[in-house]
Amino acid sequence: MFKVTFHFDSSEDVVSFAQEGSNLLEIAREANVAIDAPCSGNAACGKCKVQLVNGSLDSPKTIHISDEEFAQGWRLSCVSKVMSDVEVIVPDIASAYKSRMKVADLDSPEEIRIFEETRKDVKNAGILMANDLDMIRVTMDVPTLEDTMPDNERLIRAVQAVKACDRPKIPFRVVKHLSALLREYNYDVTVVTRSYDDVVEIMGIFGKDEPLVVPGVAIDIGTTTVAAIEVDMLTGKILAKASTGNGQIRYGADVINRIIESEKPGGRQKLQDAIIKETLNPLILQMSKAAGLSSRRIMRLCIASNTTMNHLLLGVYADPIRMEPYIPSFYGIRDVYARDLGLPTFPNALVIFAPNIGSYVGGDITAGTFASGIWHRETMSLFIDLGTNGELVFGNSEFMMSCACSAGPAFEGGDISCGMRATDGAIEAVEIDKDTMKPHCKVIGDKGQKPVGVCGSGIIDLISELFRCGIINPKGKFVREGERVRHDKYGMGSYVIAFRDEAASVKDVEITEADIDNFMRAKGAIFSAIRTMLGSLDFPVDIIDDVYVAGGIGSGINMRNAINIGMFPDIPIEKFHYIGNSSLSGAYLMMISTQAEEKVNQIAQNMTYLELSNEPGYMDEFVASCFIPHTDADLFPSLTMK
Amino acid sequence: MFKVTFHFDSSEDVVSFAQEGSNLLEIAREANVAIDAPCSGNAACGKCKVQLVNGSLDSPKTIHISDEEFAQGWRLSCVSKVMSDVEVIVPDIASAYKSRMKVADLDSPEEIRIFEETRKDVKNAGILMANDLDMIRVTMDVPTLEDTMPDNERLIRAVQAVKACDRPKIPFRVVKHLSALLREYNYDVTVVTRSYDDVVEIMGIFGKDEPLVVPGVAIDIGTTTVAAIEVDMLTGKILAKASTGNGQIRYGADVINRIIESEKPGGRQKLQDAIIKETLNPLILQMSKAAGLSSRRIMRLCIASNTTMNHLLLGVYADPIRMEPYIPSFYGIRDVYARDLGLPTFPNALVIFAPNIGSYVGGDITAGTFASGIWHRETMSLFIDLGTNGELVFGNSEFMMSCACSAGPAFEGGDISCGMRATDGAIEAVEIDKDTMKPHCKVIGDKGQKPVGVCGSGIIDLISELFRCGIINPKGKFVREGERVRHDKYGMGSYVIAFRDEAASVKDVEITEADIDNFMRAKGAIFSAIRTMLGSLDFPVDIIDDVYVAGGIGSGINMRNAINIGMFPDIPIEKFHYIGNSSLSGAYLMMISTQAEEKVNQIAQNMTYLELSNEPGYMDEFVASCFIPHTDADLFPSLTMK
Repeated sequence: MFKVTFHFDSSEDVVSFAQEGSNLLEIAREANVAIDAPCSGNAACGKCKVQLVNGSLDSPKTIHISDEEFAQGWRLSCVSKVMSDVEVIVPDIASAYKSRMKVADLDSPEEIRIFEETRKDVKNAGILMANDLDMIRVTMDVPTLEDTMPDNERLIRAVQAVKACDRPKIPFRVVKHLSALLREYNYDVTVVTRSYDDVVEIMGIFGKDEPLVVPGVAIDIGTTTVAAIEVDMLTGKILAKASTGNGQIRYGADVINRIIESEKPGGRQKLQDAIIKETLNPLILQMSKAAGLSSRRIMRLCIASNTTMNHLLLGVYADPIRMEPYIPSFYGIRDVYARDLGLPTFPNALVIFAPNIGSYVGGDITAGTFASGIWHRETMSLFIDLGTNGELVFGNSEFMMSCACSAGPAFEGGDISCGMRATDGAIEAVEIDKDTMKPHCKVIGDKGQKPVGVCGSGIIDLISELFRCGIINPKGKFVREGERVRHDKYGMGSYVIAFRDEAASVKDVEITEADIDNFMRAKGAIFSAIRTMLGSLDFPVDIIDDVYVAGGIGSGINMRNAINIGMFPDIPIEKFHYIGNSSLSGAYLMMISTQAEEKVNQIAQNMTYLELSNEPGYMDEFVASCFIPHTDADLFPSLTMK
Repeated sequence: MFKVTFHFDSSEDVVSFAQEGSNLLEIAREANVAIDAPCSGNAACGKCKVQLVNGSLDSPKTIHISDEEFAQGWRLSCVSKVMSDVEVIVPDIASAYKSRMKVADLDSPEEIRIFEETRKDVKNAGILMANDLDMIRVTMDVPTLEDTMPDNERLIRAVQAVKACDRPKIPFRVVKHLSALLREYNYDVTVVTRSYDDVVEIMGIFGKDEPLVVPGVAIDIGTTTVAAIEVDMLTGKILAKASTGNGQIRYGADVINRIIESEKPGGRQKLQDAIIKETLNPLILQMSKAAGLSSRRIMRLCIASNTTMNHLLLGVYADPIRMEPYIPSFYGIRDVYARDLGLPTFPNALVIFAPNIGSYVGGDITAGTFASGIWHRETMSLFIDLGTNGELVFGNSEFMMSCACSAGPAFEGGDISCGMRATDGAIEAVEIDKDTMKPHCKVIGDKGQKPVGVCGSGIIDLISELFRCGIINPKGKFVREGERVRHDKYGMGSYVIAFRDEAASVKDVEITEADIDNFMRAKGAIFSAIRTMLGSLDFPVDIIDDVYVAGGIGSGINMRNAINIGMFPDIPIEKFHYIGNSSLSGAYLMMISTQAEEKVNQIAQNMTYLELSNEPGYMDEFVASCFIPHTDADLFPSLTMK
């Protein structure tokens, strides 16, 4: 057995042991070391680089590693076999997806403003902000030899008197500690109730001195990123917020690779553990800590996620999703409780799932569509969710059509050598001086934060600016020379955004032609999807009254630059609205409002789905969109005018 | 650390390790060695005797151990401290309660006859033998690119078409493997459904070649003994039967001691594990094996048990049951599922509990009362359940009154030095030759089975015969001399039923004056309870038209002898009916018939409860009943006439 030591920039070493010839990426996965491997370990993506600092790895040099890098010890972990005790450095950039959890992630004034606006908009549309949970004060007679009614009956009758309802139900888990609690609080308690289908259920019993809140947790589970808020179900008030990477990332960057992993022996359990035990549970515990409330008090959860994510979270057999004819096990699923999933909340807490409408349009989109408000407007809206998959919904209060395109993880910084999600250290906005070619960057984080990488909004700016400055041509190839522009021996160009000494990274932060190519395919997928969907309805792009852009690309997104690179259609800039994480705000609204939940289910039932791959001309549209801005310049009149 | 080895007559050694001075009974409990300790280890009952064959124990000689026994190495384990490596023999009689499980225990023609008669009687009273479970064949269209409906929706619609119902529910646990199952069976399956409250729930999905049965398990959980049957819910047919000792026995023989144990640190979990993991789960698995069906197919359970047993089974805080004013957490409890208890059945199987009506009259009695049929007769019936507690119900279709008395475990062979439950090796009937004083015994088991001890019905015969032959006087003291009658140095008499060489035991099977005294208190408790209850209604005993005797005392009970010793009132012998384990037959009926379940709940609501200790004169009655047959001979005219 050899000793394998993983070093990190910002956290403690992890030590593991392995037999001679073991695969380094496998060892890392087993040791819970997050090394990103979007291609599932096929040496295709070049993301799983580590730096060997001691010992011997049997590892071929691949196209993703330059001579200089190889000399410095850089290796792809997916093709490396352990031949002795080894020590490797896992660079921050490789583990960026599973970066440390961020509590109170949504605290930026911009995020708060967006969140509040969404809430207001939905309220104005007539949705009542009320749910089935309630908290009441209940006082009972203390039992005597003359009054020997059992404790559950005593509580049932007292609750019945306050709520004026039929005989309430007490779940057996509540009965378990009932006698002890009633005695401790001297038969004077606060009771949380849930009212549904003519039933009042007694959920929890608390002393009268405990905080009078009923916490609920809304969660957006993205393929790459997970974000959540803890709120008081009685008032809707936000108690805590947090976000983190999806722990499943080490089983593949996209849903297809994860489904494949889930069907390997023990895979379904591994994938479920990665999202529940490794991701959601710490997230929930952290938020509860921040809110100063036990996580056991959480009485409701609502989850918005794509179809694959909700299948894998529930441990449901997901293989048919990826194989023709692409059949999920469910669209909507009900009656799931926290105890079924091993969540650290109140065991009987109901877990609401935003409904899917197809294998590739999931609950994140139905919840997001609700949050976007397009369902209650007569004007024509386009809702765009820029996630690992790009999903579009077009319509108004009369009809809604959706489609999905595979954008890849580029918008969240994946498939981009310097890419990362919009968190501390991410360059979220860039301007380039046309003469000196020097960039001016805006970095997320405290003042003085050095850049680690570039998030989606920063990449849009970068490409737009590189093009504007004539540094790259419409195909994304480097055509100017300078200190910051390099070409490797294969002729691949790159641009240095931050030299190593300016960055919080072990190497220069640079964008390569391969990165630009990946991003162009992502933006091309979105643009061609918009064109194809509108085309199928025989609508021109200027029928669009409003565009709602959502997703983890970051609130820093510059809509003008997004048009400039041909990602969004060339319509007036004021029609674009960034609405933040609409999936999370949708989940929040579904959780605190029964009417909102009903409306989301109604939206799901009424929304039609357009399968882009069945549309003639879609592939041509896509190919034509993989230029800056497009092969057909007439589609971007405002650019030629400029 | 010292090595402690437990030897047994009929099973393998158990080895444990303990520190110097550790208590031997505690070591045995931790090692799962069943040593009976009805008094909870207070040196009061003398049942925890073991024979030291090697090593050294620091152990005082108590009143329960004779000089000869002490010389032979007999020690009370509850007062023994380990002072070296030791080896002890645990006699069969001490572990008799947790004797090996017996599958098909109820196979005696007499038990079967009783069971069938009960079923017929209830049917004739108009109770429909139908429940909410059903099995249907369902065929679906195989999905295509043109028909991409999710699998759950496909199944829901197909079931809806067959059942002509509102949209059926599919629990998430069923959805989990749905896609895999539908594909395996090519969308042609057998579905088990449950219909309740206007809802049809899809319980399980099976291939069309699997056996068309829906197993359910009815269980009687007694303080001492557990008995169960597995049946087909669709036909009521019995598939398997089994009985075993209650694994909680090592935490005390009676409910009070068990509640005390349950409130020690970790105690509630220990008591719950003892009944579920150690007792019910093996019982269920054994029956399923005998029935040739996976235990995972069991879709329903019904449990009849006393109030303490059902509280401890559910892990519910039970302490207030034993303390004034004796308040249980619940009478009836609903919506408990197999998954909540970790039973090895279908996780979503509903577990029905027969309702309690007080802290000391539980679900075993409400189920038993139903099985006795007294609720549908106009004539006056007395139902007597001879368990560790004795419970009585008196009444007819108009009214029912119940009471409970603490009989102790004597009827099931507890608190009797040679006592055991009515299983293989138990002497169930005895006749004594008046001249030679030689006994003629009937032993349960295969031909040639040597006696191990005496069960309840055998003890009744023994005492009746010893009295008839003038060997004991009305106070239960030995007054004749002979080979089989002995007196120890304290003057305590005893009678040898089987000498060591005739018995399957390490010592003579004998009954002592202390045993007779214990049994007289048990039978006195029953008789005085009958007198007090009838007295409270101002009824003479001859108002009783029928007496239904139930319990683990054994079908061998001789009613004449039970009258002779003053246990039952002196009414015509043909009025007495032994109805076997009425608690189990009641649970069976509640399980397979929804109407029966409703009726049991109705019986529980309408039955009144008489607290004997509040009745003036009850203690005097009791004292007067602790004679053979009674201090007032006029109460037994048929005996004086003889």
